[in-house]
Amino acid sequence: MLLRKKQKQDVDSDILALTKIVGTKSILHYKEDLLSYDCDGFTIHKAMPKAVIFPKNTEEVSAAVKYCSDRNIPFLARGAGTGLSGGAIPLNNEVIISLVKMKHLLEVDYENRQATVQPGFVNLKLTNSISHKGYYYAPDPSSQYVCTIGGNVAENAGGAHCLKYGVTTNHILGLEVVLPDGEIIEISNNGVLDMPGYDLLGILTGSEGTLGIVTKIIVRILKNPEAKKTVLAYFDNVEDGSQAVSDIISAGIIPAALEMMDQTAIEGVEKGAFPVGHPDDIEALLLIEVDGIAEGIEEQIDQILSVCRNRNVREVKVARDEEERGRWWANRKTGFGAMGAISPDYLVQDGVIPRSKLPEVLNKIRSISDEYELRIANIFHAGDGNLHPLILFDSRIEGETDKALKAGTACLKACADAGGSITGEHGVGIEKKEEMRFIFSDEEIEAQTAIRDVFNPNNLLNQGKLFPTPSRCMDIKKVIKETAVTK
Amino acid sequence: MLLRKKQKQDVDSDILALTKIVGTKSILHYKEDLLSYDCDGFTIHKAMPKAVIFPKNTEEVSAAVKYCSDRNIPFLARGAGTGLSGGAIPLNNEVIISLVKMKHLLEVDYENRQATVQPGFVNLKLTNSISHKGYYYAPDPSSQYVCTIGGNVAENAGGAHCLKYGVTTNHILGLEVVLPDGEIIEISNNGVLDMPGYDLLGILTGSEGTLGIVTKIIVRILKNPEAKKTVLAYFDNVEDGSQAVSDIISAGIIPAALEMMDQTAIEGVEKGAFPVGHPDDIEALLLIEVDGIAEGIEEQIDQILSVCRNRNVREVKVARDEEERGRWWANRKTGFGAMGAISPDYLVQDGVIPRSKLPEVLNKIRSISDEYELRIANIFHAGDGNLHPLILFDSRIEGETDKALKAGTACLKACADAGGSITGEHGVGIEKKEEMRFIFSDEEIEAQTAIRDVFNPNNLLNQGKLFPTPSRCMDIKKVIKETAVTK
Repeated sequence: MLLRKKQKQDVDSDILALTKIVGTKSILHYKEDLLSYDCDGFTIHKAMPKAVIFPKNTEEVSAAVKYCSDRNIPFLARGAGTGLSGGAIPLNNEVIISLVKMKHLLEVDYENRQATVQPGFVNLKLTNSISHKGYYYAPDPSSQYVCTIGGNVAENAGGAHCLKYGVTTNHILGLEVVLPDGEIIEISNNGVLDMPGYDLLGILTGSEGTLGIVTKIIVRILKNPEAKKTVLAYFDNVEDGSQAVSDIISAGIIPAALEMMDQTAIEGVEKGAFPVGHPDDIEALLLIEVDGIAEGIEEQIDQILSVCRNRNVREVKVARDEEERGRWWANRKTGFGAMGAISPDYLVQDGVIPRSKLPEVLNKIRSISDEYELRIANIFHAGDGNLHPLILFDSRIEGETDKALKAGTACLKACADAGGSITGEHGVGIEKKEEMRFIFSDEEIEAQTAIRDVFNPNNLLNQGKLFPTPSRCMDIKKVIKETAVTK
Repeated sequence: MLLRKKQKQDVDSDILALTKIVGTKSILHYKEDLLSYDCDGFTIHKAMPKAVIFPKNTEEVSAAVKYCSDRNIPFLARGAGTGLSGGAIPLNNEVIISLVKMKHLLEVDYENRQATVQPGFVNLKLTNSISHKGYYYAPDPSSQYVCTIGGNVAENAGGAHCLKYGVTTNHILGLEVVLPDGEIIEISNNGVLDMPGYDLLGILTGSEGTLGIVTKIIVRILKNPEAKKTVLAYFDNVEDGSQAVSDIISAGIIPAALEMMDQTAIEGVEKGAFPVGHPDDIEALLLIEVDGIAEGIEEQIDQILSVCRNRNVREVKVARDEEERGRWWANRKTGFGAMGAISPDYLVQDGVIPRSKLPEVLNKIRSISDEYELRIANIFHAGDGNLHPLILFDSRIEGETDKALKAGTACLKACADAGGSITGEHGVGIEKKEEMRFIFSDEEIEAQTAIRDVFNPNNLLNQGKLFPTPSRCMDIKKVIKETAVTK
């Protein structure tokens, strides 16, 4: 009884101390308030944090981190919580450091083409803030209307237009980072392509919140392309669609985006919030966008149309205007959510394959679907071989969540076996820790954890993510299975 | 006496063992044979290696590394030896592992747009080997006709066309690496933009041979642009030229290359091997290249011409044909060497500044030239703000080498003060170790050396490079001064 009381007191003293750092309006610690922080976009696993704090500036982040670090309290950073691999789930009763109050655009330097933002600044707001001057921010994850640039840095987020413009890491010019001991460092390449020393910006970007907490970000902004054209092509069979993807790239065209959806995905998006009237009996559609100088665009469009026709396209059309283009993109970008219209639950996977293996791996996914008796929709970035199989299941049916997880793993295995990777842009988080073994040897994983230990020696920051942890005897698949929450 | 004999025997046993690994035809150890390995492109400092070995495959590299590592013998890798910052100079009587016998193109995969090469494969040979199919390799350091791709990886080499296409790190898809203990690992992103885990490819690329020895490289190859146009513009004053650079970028044009030379540089190149008849009384010339789809090019050229005219250009012309274009580029790319025609010695520096600071920093360099009474030629990648001040001096004159080194440091300080960096593409090596302090705090340098220790814990691989080493009490400027070799 005495012990219980003491424990309670300990907890309270931490909450009190953290409240002193961030203020009473910037901390949550009652269980009912914490409920919405028990998972992120990876909803299959849930766990409760110790508290959630909302610092308003770098100094508060640093003070909170230092407090936790000195007392051996695990902690992690959280942006909008849209991550799909569980990177912001508090596995060990963490203090969550939410960065949503650090949500300001600090500076735009048009002359040197860069903008400085706080980590909680929403991705799409950046483009909205600079578009009147003819500029935009290139990385465009489908969740861009809500996800934060801090989260994008953690996950090295991609998006439909990363085929031509590269992922987040290609657009980061500088970071302010709070290290796991509370120290604040600045890393900048000042717009320089090749900074001396090791590529710390590169290591931090995509480190999934395991090396430090980003508190300020300098990003590259781009001038709007002079012209943009968007093509929609319907194919009676998947092979023709896949082959058209290869043909377009082989023709030397690098589209700004080259997206594909299969029949099941089309069924979903047409029942979702933004239907556009795609036929229900085609096996594949391609959404292709080219941008650049006006003069060059028409010729590229002609080439794309003729490639599609050579591959037996049923129908192919160019968006008449910005309004039609916008509807096509809304239909595509809300595609994951639209799966809710045809299935009570879905699990989205994120594998990458060499483009030339597209038909082979899509076939393999079809046979995985047959084997596990679960429908799988495919809606993905075909141009860079980044697949997103959406495994449709019903968690209310006994054993179906487990089956979906297994089918997902089988899809990733198929990607790895085809010489690809287990994640294109969603990250590893807790979801794919064990699958890291599909592509990395023990030595390679050790080299990576040794780098983590340089920054995060006590492993208090975002514990149990990104790497398989055999020595700690944690079987994540077992944990997920045992704690899986049904909707 | 006994001790001396024993030492001699020790040396011999190492040479014997290494000979057993690589064969008698692949090792040099007599002093006269080692003379050409006492420096690289940074000729101001020289030091003798213990031996030079020429392994023919990864296994021999690994065996030699393991031998050295087990016996605490320092070692380093060397490519063509064209590096400009002393990264391949054996400061500690190293065994040099020369990779020039591993010089083959192993595979070209046109479908997935990648090529696999050995580290000793010469940069330009790659483009020459694939151009008949309409492909090329983008990074083009001026030394590309002789430098190796392995060396390019170590230094994260740039080049004139990196303004549009990015530096080496943007073109590396995979590496085979022998770690400092002899272990062989493979790191590949399989053409994937965002690999899970930390960005090991990024850390290795540009690590200046301090983390491992690269023995195989998978690079991205690009389809030749459909069209290419090159413009030469002469300006009566530097400010107008600098302003034209800014105007071109502000207009939303990203040229493939945007190079600048000042009057002293022009004097040099016109007395060099490839004169093209530049006027001798202009203060600046710009060499501007655009590439892409034929239709778009003409409009860009028109924009560039009108920008130049608005900035009071004296003369501006478009290359009539590939032959004229080739002559302009030969004149530019052999520019450093051409300085030999107007000065017995020169020291090339490599700083980076935000593009908007170009006029200010060029002025500062002019006053450094006045202060040290040394002529400074500027020939550089203006588009990405990568300056190359060439400090002309005569090492036969007492104290002038020292003055040149000081003037070089002052130029770098000017770049760092303008918010830039101390190297754009030549690396830090031994030349700029101390200048790392201009841009990194002690903590930031510590974070980096901690990463080095993960890979290279005994620091046997390429000792004394890249980082300032105060704790080891080595004042590199003093070392350079004391051991400076006159031509």
